[in-house]
Amino acid sequence: MLSPSLEDYLEEIYRLSLSHEAVRVTDIAGKLQVKLPSVTKALRRLNDENYLTYRRYKEIILTDKGRRLGRFLLERNRIIQEFIDLLDVACDKEQEAEAMEHYLSLPTIRAIDHLVSFMREHPSWLEAFQAYRLQKEREDLVLEDGYGEEEPGT
Amino acid sequence: MLSPSLEDYLEEIYRLSLSHEAVRVTDIAGKLQVKLPSVTKALRRLNDENYLTYRRYKEIILTDKGRRLGRFLLERNRIIQEFIDLLDVACDKEQEAEAMEHYLSLPTIRAIDHLVSFMREHPSWLEAFQAYRLQKEREDLVLEDGYGEEEPGT
Repeated sequence: MLSPSLEDYLEEIYRLSLSHEAVRVTDIAGKLQVKLPSVTKALRRLNDENYLTYRRYKEIILTDKGRRLGRFLLERNRIIQEFIDLLDVACDKEQEAEAMEHYLSLPTIRAIDHLVSFMREHPSWLEAFQAYRLQKEREDLVLEDGYGEEEPGT
Repeated sequence: MLSPSLEDYLEEIYRLSLSHEAVRVTDIAGKLQVKLPSVTKALRRLNDENYLTYRRYKEIILTDKGRRLGRFLLERNRIIQEFIDLLDVACDKEQEAEAMEHYLSLPTIRAIDHLVSFMREHPSWLEAFQAYRLQKEREDLVLEDGYGEEEPGT
């Protein structure tokens, strides 16, 4: 397993490879908002683990292994983003997907994937759920924030 | 915000406080399967942040702030566990909940909470979802493991 950080690099490289003839270090740095030396360090590690080939001043080329994992990482990100989207959560959705995706096991991601497509294919279900949520919120039946305001007198 | 590790300590201390007159360092160490010095280090930090009072050889007492957060952490863990349970995921459910809970934002946890209670209160929907999943699995429409077996010839 790659670290969350290396997974992010590979995911982005794969994403770039879909729309660019050649993936450049500066593109990756720009997308992930990191410095060039961080990118080359990550590239070297991905090269060592046979996810891509990287030589200084040469093109970055994903191996079959790298493409397969990249495709999976992109798909995993899409599933989690759609899930958060369907739940209509008031948060930074991209950041939330980023936080979730690295920590879920494959069986859970598969189950969420099916839940997402089930909800999409059953709009009446989704509507019923949304109405249910509104009702709960109106009745103030929402989980309290444990880090919330101090209790008076403490 | 507490670190994931300190959150685990506080959650466990709160859980113990519900069933024990006094919470002892050895109980915590036993539950979390950590060594005593790790527990006392965590207790000192939770004491410094006013979640509990801890003095050597004295009882551990949660403050109002600590009880409030403990209640939240326990509830959050329950929600995530129930969610994984409902999804009927073939994984170590406790470990999976542990992995997820620290990284989700409060709005997402609230949404998942409502999703779980909605599914429980609408068993026909839950059954429809389960049938849908089985069908997808039968048709082999499941996300492939990106870390899976090497492709032939690589």
